[in-house]
Amino acid sequence: MAAASIVGPKEGEGPLADSFDKIVQDTYHGEKTWEKAESKLLTESVETVIKKAGLTPQDIDYLLAGDLLNQIISANYAARQLTIPFVGLYGACSTMYEGIALAAMMVDGGYAEKVVVAVSSHHDTAERQYRYPTELGAQRPMTSQWTVTGAGAMLIGKEGSGPKITHATIGKIVDQGIKDANDMGSAMAPAAADTILTHLMDTGRTPEDYDLIVTGDLATVGKALVEKLAQQQNTDLSNNYTDCGILIFDPSQDVHAGGSGCACSAVVTCGYLIEEMMAGKFKRILGVGTGALHSPLSCQQGESIPGIGHAVAFEMQ
Amino acid sequence: MAAASIVGPKEGEGPLADSFDKIVQDTYHGEKTWEKAESKLLTESVETVIKKAGLTPQDIDYLLAGDLLNQIISANYAARQLTIPFVGLYGACSTMYEGIALAAMMVDGGYAEKVVVAVSSHHDTAERQYRYPTELGAQRPMTSQWTVTGAGAMLIGKEGSGPKITHATIGKIVDQGIKDANDMGSAMAPAAADTILTHLMDTGRTPEDYDLIVTGDLATVGKALVEKLAQQQNTDLSNNYTDCGILIFDPSQDVHAGGSGCACSAVVTCGYLIEEMMAGKFKRILGVGTGALHSPLSCQQGESIPGIGHAVAFEMQ
Repeated sequence: MAAASIVGPKEGEGPLADSFDKIVQDTYHGEKTWEKAESKLLTESVETVIKKAGLTPQDIDYLLAGDLLNQIISANYAARQLTIPFVGLYGACSTMYEGIALAAMMVDGGYAEKVVVAVSSHHDTAERQYRYPTELGAQRPMTSQWTVTGAGAMLIGKEGSGPKITHATIGKIVDQGIKDANDMGSAMAPAAADTILTHLMDTGRTPEDYDLIVTGDLATVGKALVEKLAQQQNTDLSNNYTDCGILIFDPSQDVHAGGSGCACSAVVTCGYLIEEMMAGKFKRILGVGTGALHSPLSCQQGESIPGIGHAVAFEMQ
Repeated sequence: MAAASIVGPKEGEGPLADSFDKIVQDTYHGEKTWEKAESKLLTESVETVIKKAGLTPQDIDYLLAGDLLNQIISANYAARQLTIPFVGLYGACSTMYEGIALAAMMVDGGYAEKVVVAVSSHHDTAERQYRYPTELGAQRPMTSQWTVTGAGAMLIGKEGSGPKITHATIGKIVDQGIKDANDMGSAMAPAAADTILTHLMDTGRTPEDYDLIVTGDLATVGKALVEKLAQQQNTDLSNNYTDCGILIFDPSQDVHAGGSGCACSAVVTCGYLIEEMMAGKFKRILGVGTGALHSPLSCQQGESIPGIGHAVAFEMQ
């Protein structure tokens, strides 16, 4: 029924700037902490998507939301303010697509008329929670990605003029033993490839049935690995496959492998992809939200980083 | 279709000991860390519920799971091992009921044949993440609760001889400004009362339509507050209302206000409540999973503790 996206200053300097509803110029966004700023971005993305559909929060049956922070506080405090019945999700950076799949089932099954799915991430909250204090200025290896600051929201209902959600493939966890928290692309790529291949097998489709196959935040390192893994299963993704983490930044922006974070796939989907579908450029897209399901503590305890990918097919009729 | 519960040694000394499938005698459960032990409990609860139904993991369409740890690592690492398509949830201690509501929609809507919902918590992992290092031995005020060590799993499908899930009321976040992380009962009670009253209004039912109304982990402090808040809305819960956090421990076990944690409502529901329904003691139960949606960081940044409650009606036909 509608989609909305809000991003931070760096994302607003990227190639997709025109597709976002709002670009904020300060990563604090008028708040005292980055965490409060992130929650505000999420709240505003939900308010924006509801407003774009000409509705009010009271018209929404459920809010499905999540983020990367411990105990998904960005989503919780946004949901507190919005007072919509709330389902909290955690799928790391795959959360937007996990939520879209669930929301489509809730609406199509007749349990809701209108559901909003929303997620957020913030470079500075993620960096200090997952890696190093931001003040430290630690050098980032070339495999590292830049967490997108922003929030995306999608309003899913039985009516509306946007693309239809025709299929969803919920992913299984795949873990190839990667332990480097600065190489998320490699950790998530096997799960993304598994979900894409499962989706194609389940539906009897081929990559050519889609105008675009787009993963969430594998960036250059992970995208290359997905293509290689698919090729090993005799599936050629080289013609119509890209990644939101590559689309959102220009290489000149010094983001190394590309973008990441819950908001990466969310703002690219709710901004650029939906916009181009509405404009007729793409008729059928397979989006695959990708997530790395570790924690700093699990890494400290010697665990590897498991990945997951959830696929959703969007189709203009 | 089936339910399973595994608990730690303290819970195994409580009044519901006979209703659990397994009682482990060591909180490390053969692992090197409490976090790994918690994940193992969750894995075993899922394996047990699948086995009780005479099935294998390959028969399960989706696993919906969550826990209290940062980035829900207990659930993620359990899902990695089980290789069932996985939907990660975070609703703090309300997660079991959030998951049951979603799973019932997925099955009833025709998107899945069999879904497992599972959650875990562990006293020692929760205590050191949310409050103090366990080695510190900090004195606990009388309003504090004891996080249940254990895991509960429920297999939901179209067949089976257990209770039917007839209604679900997804809760809104309610925040009355409580900032004391040692008084979770007071933080969650307003949300629980709101969900119970909303459920009764939506369905046209009265408390007497249920043999038992049971909240998740409000314990003695929160339960008294729910009764008071309901009374203010002319709803008398005094005859048939209790709380899983009161049921699971005996006052002699030195748990102060009672039990808490994701596993509190999960093991009491998957153990005692389902068992008593199958035995004919209760025909109709309204369970209300309750959660406190804060994080240590949000408390440090001055935020209060928002609560949520999700209600599910179980009915024997």
